[in-house]
Amino acid sequence: MSDKVLSNQEHIERAAKLIEDIQFAMISSVDSDGKLTSCPMTTQGFEEFSGSIWFIGSKSSGLVHSLKLNPAVNLSYSDNSSKNYVSVSGSAALVEDAQKLEQMWSPFYQAYFDSPADPDIQLIQITAHSLEYWISNNVFVNIYEMGKALATGDKADLGERHKIDLV
Amino acid sequence: MSDKVLSNQEHIERAAKLIEDIQFAMISSVDSDGKLTSCPMTTQGFEEFSGSIWFIGSKSSGLVHSLKLNPAVNLSYSDNSSKNYVSVSGSAALVEDAQKLEQMWSPFYQAYFDSPADPDIQLIQITAHSLEYWISNNVFVNIYEMGKALATGDKADLGERHKIDLV
Repeated sequence: MSDKVLSNQEHIERAAKLIEDIQFAMISSVDSDGKLTSCPMTTQGFEEFSGSIWFIGSKSSGLVHSLKLNPAVNLSYSDNSSKNYVSVSGSAALVEDAQKLEQMWSPFYQAYFDSPADPDIQLIQITAHSLEYWISNNVFVNIYEMGKALATGDKADLGERHKIDLV
Repeated sequence: MSDKVLSNQEHIERAAKLIEDIQFAMISSVDSDGKLTSCPMTTQGFEEFSGSIWFIGSKSSGLVHSLKLNPAVNLSYSDNSSKNYVSVSGSAALVEDAQKLEQMWSPFYQAYFDSPADPDIQLIQITAHSLEYWISNNVFVNIYEMGKALATGDKADLGERHKIDLV
């Protein structure tokens, strides 16, 4: 493990940078049968981490139906090429806020909705309760450490892992 | 949406190929506080989809503690470069099976465990109840469709989406 001691704020900034870079989340929720399902969502307009991550979804989606019954969610961000992963545990609120929607709207959403006035649009605010992240600084180091473990029988340092409680 | 009608078996084979190619899953579970957490896991020895996906985990991990309380899980597989995603909803069993462990063991795990006899090893069998996948055949088509949507105001065909009930 790294000897470098980072503050919680520095950890959060690192996780925020990973989220911004990876951009695509799988959001997991609990459906009406108690099953855990997930679907891909796009993180837009995320520049710093203020405790919330916002998404634009569809009122008619299975996700929004599930969130009405149980607001617990997990956001997972995966970068398999660099082996960077972030897990955000939080709760979802279904928000009506025309001003926020105008701020978030981009041409990206025209593929899914007619306009910001489309009545099917559902703003989803995820309030993060805790997050974890895993980083491997680069694939080479990862392979090197793996090789060292194989050669010596020692357990490898496969990257740092941090858990941060936000609330 | 595609006009091509695939059988459930063909859908499952496509999803299995995506899982095999992506290899790294984020596994979501419910912890003792009711929070949804996720962590990266490696899918090893997965060649065809027989209804189960196996992982080698650690008895001392938060994941295994959570699964003892609530076996509901979701596996998400993300390939952000090609925009391919798979979600597997299932339940986890904590299995003791020395023969299965010997079959699954590979040098990969020497980074985490001393040997297949390491008492901290926990075999985890995920029985899939349903799965969904999203595919974009390639980034170019995706961009093209997005461009078409922006140019014409039509909603884009951003890839197929299929939901399969396995049980």
